[in-house]
Amino acid sequence: MTREQLFQQIKIKRSYLCIGLDTDIKKIPPHLLKKEDPIFEFNKQIIEATSDYCVAYKPNLAFYESLGPAGLVSLEKTMSIIPKNIFTIADAKRGDIGNTSEMYANTFYDYYKFDSVTVAPYMGKDSVVPFLRKDKWVILLALTSNSGSLDFQMTEVFLPGTQADFKLYQHVLRHAQQWAGTDQLMFVIGATHPELFKEVRKIAPDHFLAGSGE
Amino acid sequence: MTREQLFQQIKIKRSYLCIGLDTDIKKIPPHLLKKEDPIFEFNKQIIEATSDYCVAYKPNLAFYESLGPAGLVSLEKTMSIIPKNIFTIADAKRGDIGNTSEMYANTFYDYYKFDSVTVAPYMGKDSVVPFLRKDKWVILLALTSNSGSLDFQMTEVFLPGTQADFKLYQHVLRHAQQWAGTDQLMFVIGATHPELFKEVRKIAPDHFLAGSGE
Repeated sequence: MTREQLFQQIKIKRSYLCIGLDTDIKKIPPHLLKKEDPIFEFNKQIIEATSDYCVAYKPNLAFYESLGPAGLVSLEKTMSIIPKNIFTIADAKRGDIGNTSEMYANTFYDYYKFDSVTVAPYMGKDSVVPFLRKDKWVILLALTSNSGSLDFQMTEVFLPGTQADFKLYQHVLRHAQQWAGTDQLMFVIGATHPELFKEVRKIAPDHFLAGSGE
Repeated sequence: MTREQLFQQIKIKRSYLCIGLDTDIKKIPPHLLKKEDPIFEFNKQIIEATSDYCVAYKPNLAFYESLGPAGLVSLEKTMSIIPKNIFTIADAKRGDIGNTSEMYANTFYDYYKFDSVTVAPYMGKDSVVPFLRKDKWVILLALTSNSGSLDFQMTEVFLPGTQADFKLYQHVLRHAQQWAGTDQLMFVIGATHPELFKEVRKIAPDHFLAGSGE
């Protein structure tokens, strides 16, 4: 999906809402457990009830993977019923050496037909660029919503030729902009850090930001 | 597998060898493509030929996931034929908020029965600790083998109360030792940085290190 297409959906629906599909077999209504594929049936009901109001769905891969190959079948069926004009995010937090990131890109773009993947920045440029494809998006972790975001993301970094007054997440926000433009790169900025939005927008004024409150 | 059991295997076999199972359907011998599950058949031949000489197998999850649910069936079958005294590594580079990392831990430990998972540190403590279980191991990315390791891992960091003279990967090596001991935590140190091994061993003298030359 292009930036323009996504903007258009946001305008038509007057919504920025992204719905997470972190479907936990232990938490879905008991009557659905009698169905052949309870995970898919639950997702189907959620999608039918919400597709007029949201602009994105975000399946969390961990929840499908934990059920083994059958969980991935549920994911595949779920992807097949999401309307094509709704943006899809593989919340997978991947990132590996080049040929492996390429395989993950094949997984999410070619096999499951996602529009985007969440990617971890720690392994650097060659771990991220294989996820950059025409009309596909990298959603790069910058400042995450969890308490562990304080461990490394908020660490002060020192870069030659600059003042030692910015933090690793800010370095990620700046540096990654060398790899892709606002038409292929979004950033994860957790909604638990509202006081830092101003700093984020100074560095990345035009990028889509994605974030939850945990 | 405990540290003692792994040490014992290393001593018995006089080997530190870990064999990657990055099995690419496009690269396996043509005669195996006629089999019902070529990926599994290829892995089976590799395992039968090498199990006397190695102490670990490391399937790369991306290669299995790229084939959809069927690829995970091949992984499941592969895991079932690895001798129990050989250490297994889910090379998955995961790391997410607590409940999601917990789901990934369920995936690799409970479903596929791996002994360990490679984990990315960017999201911090609560993204890593769900992978710490009795007799299971986190193999945390510190300094990776790829060129992108220079982007963030080699960035100088400034920590209050210390000299501003160490790098992010060194901070990860130090900081993560607060979360687990040498009986549950290993580090990825790519073999492409031999000049830095001395620095690594100053910070983590007793941890198992895992790394490839790309």
